[in-house]
Amino acid sequence: MATAIATPPRIAHRIVAAGADLDTPCLVVDAPTLRRNVSEMAAFASSVGVALRPHIKTHKTPQIARLQLAAGAVGITCAKVGEAEVMVERAGVTDVLLAYPTVGEAKVRRLLALMARARVTVALDSREAGELLGHAIAAADRTLDVLVEVNTGHDRAGARAGDEAIALGLDLARTRGLRVVGVMTHEGQANAAPPETIEATALEAGRALVATAEALRQRGIDVQTVSVGSTPAATFTPTVPGVTEMRPGTYVFNDTSAFRYGRLGPDDCALRVLATVVSRPAPDRAVIDAGSKTLALDKSLGHPGHGYVVGHPDAEIVRVSEEHGVVLLPPGEEGFRVGDQVEVIPNHVCPVVNLQDQLVIVQDGQPIDTWDVAARGKVR
Amino acid sequence: MATAIATPPRIAHRIVAAGADLDTPCLVVDAPTLRRNVSEMAAFASSVGVALRPHIKTHKTPQIARLQLAAGAVGITCAKVGEAEVMVERAGVTDVLLAYPTVGEAKVRRLLALMARARVTVALDSREAGELLGHAIAAADRTLDVLVEVNTGHDRAGARAGDEAIALGLDLARTRGLRVVGVMTHEGQANAAPPETIEATALEAGRALVATAEALRQRGIDVQTVSVGSTPAATFTPTVPGVTEMRPGTYVFNDTSAFRYGRLGPDDCALRVLATVVSRPAPDRAVIDAGSKTLALDKSLGHPGHGYVVGHPDAEIVRVSEEHGVVLLPPGEEGFRVGDQVEVIPNHVCPVVNLQDQLVIVQDGQPIDTWDVAARGKVR
Repeated sequence: MATAIATPPRIAHRIVAAGADLDTPCLVVDAPTLRRNVSEMAAFASSVGVALRPHIKTHKTPQIARLQLAAGAVGITCAKVGEAEVMVERAGVTDVLLAYPTVGEAKVRRLLALMARARVTVALDSREAGELLGHAIAAADRTLDVLVEVNTGHDRAGARAGDEAIALGLDLARTRGLRVVGVMTHEGQANAAPPETIEATALEAGRALVATAEALRQRGIDVQTVSVGSTPAATFTPTVPGVTEMRPGTYVFNDTSAFRYGRLGPDDCALRVLATVVSRPAPDRAVIDAGSKTLALDKSLGHPGHGYVVGHPDAEIVRVSEEHGVVLLPPGEEGFRVGDQVEVIPNHVCPVVNLQDQLVIVQDGQPIDTWDVAARGKVR
Repeated sequence: MATAIATPPRIAHRIVAAGADLDTPCLVVDAPTLRRNVSEMAAFASSVGVALRPHIKTHKTPQIARLQLAAGAVGITCAKVGEAEVMVERAGVTDVLLAYPTVGEAKVRRLLALMARARVTVALDSREAGELLGHAIAAADRTLDVLVEVNTGHDRAGARAGDEAIALGLDLARTRGLRVVGVMTHEGQANAAPPETIEATALEAGRALVATAEALRQRGIDVQTVSVGSTPAATFTPTVPGVTEMRPGTYVFNDTSAFRYGRLGPDDCALRVLATVVSRPAPDRAVIDAGSKTLALDKSLGHPGHGYVVGHPDAEIVRVSEEHGVVLLPPGEEGFRVGDQVEVIPNHVCPVVNLQDQLVIVQDGQPIDTWDVAARGKVR
């Protein structure tokens, strides 16, 4: 984490017109920017010849999953069964990867119900989870497609690329109820790498995954899917020959984390928190009605403080408590009278979306629709 | 923040019996501990002769508000109008303090509707908010009771204790539509103070507030309410002569933040996150299915890491991503096989509750009820 934080980008346009009469804090999404982000990632996936299976954890919203499918996504990625249930039910999704070990009796019952309605693949990273799951699946006379989750350097979950992952893959393939159809990694280490080494880090992760896939094939496993995931690394890892699928999530909205790479700026961020100045307790201090209950607490490697105030690159959200965002203002900064509304680009958009029930969709500065964040809070 | 983190408390009992068959991650609340916490704070308030007006941001749950009222609370504190709406509607609350400036047309409309159903008082810390609000209230031919929010050292919101707060109080009292009935502070600076100075910090805040109240009385304002708030400072600030009301919140559940004071330990923590071990990627590393989407990201001055694993004082949740909690295990630690369930006491319980739709109430180790977190996500 040795990277200096970049200068705040200065070019930024607000997406909500003054006087739009929206109660705050709320999440506003610029429809044209969203559509552009969706189509550009689909075009990229197509251009490098990999399947796009976006992670819906960023938006949790059926309408946006439908946009992604319409743009060519082959299916979606979820972490939890509850997210998949919502997406199958409300977005008409028919192909889901659960990129998370499904452990526990209640979850397996729901997984079996889901398998009756959609093609479901589950990522696994342990024999223990494989046995628990495979036993229940086999008892129901079914077979479940699984990907071996491979740790290519993120050191969170996953069996280490190479011997460890190969041994796990062979064991899972021998487990009744399971059929190993591929490998996956979340190359999260690339997200934390300095901008100048992200490409090399991502490519290294991709190559390690492909090598593991190849070794499994040589041992008789029919590895069809070689899946990588991460928005920051999205333009790199999928270019490794042998990768078949990518699972970016954040790209639909983007957030301040993207600023550090210099490729994306505020105008690529489709989602903003609309907030109201509720207090001016000192000349250099404003309080907005978006605190950690709205902005979450995630830090950004791309921007200081707790979010980027659109149009105010020198204002910094220095402190948040649950309902208060404390903004430090440079001398003479305007636009922060009590009652004024500001737009804030979150540091990490996924948890911010998880805190709200709805997204307000805007176009040309005006609200045009409201979409339910239907998979919000689906932690199970 | 110069305080060393205390040794993890070693005495702790789980509240959920093995085999209770709960899907995870979920929030479990031990009913006897909850009731004890509720009644002990009510007894304390009574013993020092101040009114108890608990902040419901901690639980957001009508059943718990009812327990508080039944134990003698005079009403409740909320931050947002939406929380108050839920509590009036679903908990039969008839007296609400909105300890947050209500700014914006939509909110004022809802506030007026609320005033028809309950006694409502609003805290204000600026002339600007007072004028916007008072104008709308007067136009509806109503009068709104307000408290002057006083900054006694937390430097978040509030007019500075003394001249600044006095001048604001007088201006608000002259504002059509408003009636100043008291003063309030959130002595959050005490929560951040080292344990050895929390008492002095809290008492100083209380005295500054009482002095401001007295000065306003001398200038003709009928100050009835002198209100303080904060659970860590709850046993100190309300003892200052002249304080009439206290607004603690966290005490219903408690969390690891309380450990630093040495008065409360894990067995005083009524709420736990029940989580499942989903991966054991290395001998010293377990992954549980509670990440930042469940545990939130708040740090604790009372415990290292992202929460306290009950019964495992030497295991540390060193890293969380949205759905993964990475637990570093000491050599030989048992209870972390894939499929095992663990209980985690959160660092800051309020945002954790805000991430879930329900609380599972347990007694003698077994689930006995499920309560809706009905005011979850009410940020407006």
